[in-house]
Amino acid sequence: MTEYRFGSQVVTGHTFASTSSCFAIYNRSPIVEGHSLILPIRPAKSLLSLSEGEQALFFGFSRTVTEFLLENYQCESFDWTIQDGEPAGQTVPHLHLHVLPRRPGDIDPGSDWYQQLMESGIDISKRFRLPDETLFAISRRLKENWEEWLARRD
Amino acid sequence: MTEYRFGSQVVTGHTFASTSSCFAIYNRSPIVEGHSLILPIRPAKSLLSLSEGEQALFFGFSRTVTEFLLENYQCESFDWTIQDGEPAGQTVPHLHLHVLPRRPGDIDPGSDWYQQLMESGIDISKRFRLPDETLFAISRRLKENWEEWLARRD
Repeated sequence: MTEYRFGSQVVTGHTFASTSSCFAIYNRSPIVEGHSLILPIRPAKSLLSLSEGEQALFFGFSRTVTEFLLENYQCESFDWTIQDGEPAGQTVPHLHLHVLPRRPGDIDPGSDWYQQLMESGIDISKRFRLPDETLFAISRRLKENWEEWLARRD
Repeated sequence: MTEYRFGSQVVTGHTFASTSSCFAIYNRSPIVEGHSLILPIRPAKSLLSLSEGEQALFFGFSRTVTEFLLENYQCESFDWTIQDGEPAGQTVPHLHLHVLPRRPGDIDPGSDWYQQLMESGIDISKRFRLPDETLFAISRRLKENWEEWLARRD
């Protein structure tokens, strides 16, 4: 079994989709249901250090995973966001794209949720975090759905 | 002279970079200095309606413009974000990627700035908007810098 890492953390247990160059994990501190991260397997810190080919694969996979998440969570909208560099809010030095399936009224406009994204990849005690068993159960189910979805799609 | 449109608005006066398929404008309500938008010329509403080739060109151009903006504003960090669909905060039905060059301490963590992005493409009187003459002057200067930068880079 391949081991997936997000920076120094092993995240194999919440990896639900992968290719030979990229993978997707369920976020341990989801802002909304379905909140996932897309990462290159090679732990490039910045988008700007990906080659042109790596970048195309990264966004191609990100889009496929987004299409899957929208169908899985029955949403039609999404946010994509990358925080590249510490001043931009990057806390783990490993490029990651946040994908948030969105529904009307799902986030309180005053909740300052974008700021919270900065804390979602790391162990900050003040942030809500899913217990391992919940996180892994969600991710296992997503992985099954992803594989079924891919098979239907091909 | 090509006319560029963001949804129904003519934005030629703040377009500073373009290719045959995409263009970049300076944001009329910048959250930070250098805050720009990347758009496909074809007014696709959603990222998911771009073809694979259009998507690769869109992100390739977005990256090049980002590299330029970082050099121009002497920053090393940036945020990228797409709000796709009304529930995600999309207010103009024409795909646009926000690029924000970032510096330490440039945005008040409590400012709920991400929410403000929703209002930055449209005429909402409560939001700060650059006067046309300022917006166009910044954009003209950026366009000159972009052309010089591209020439140096080639």
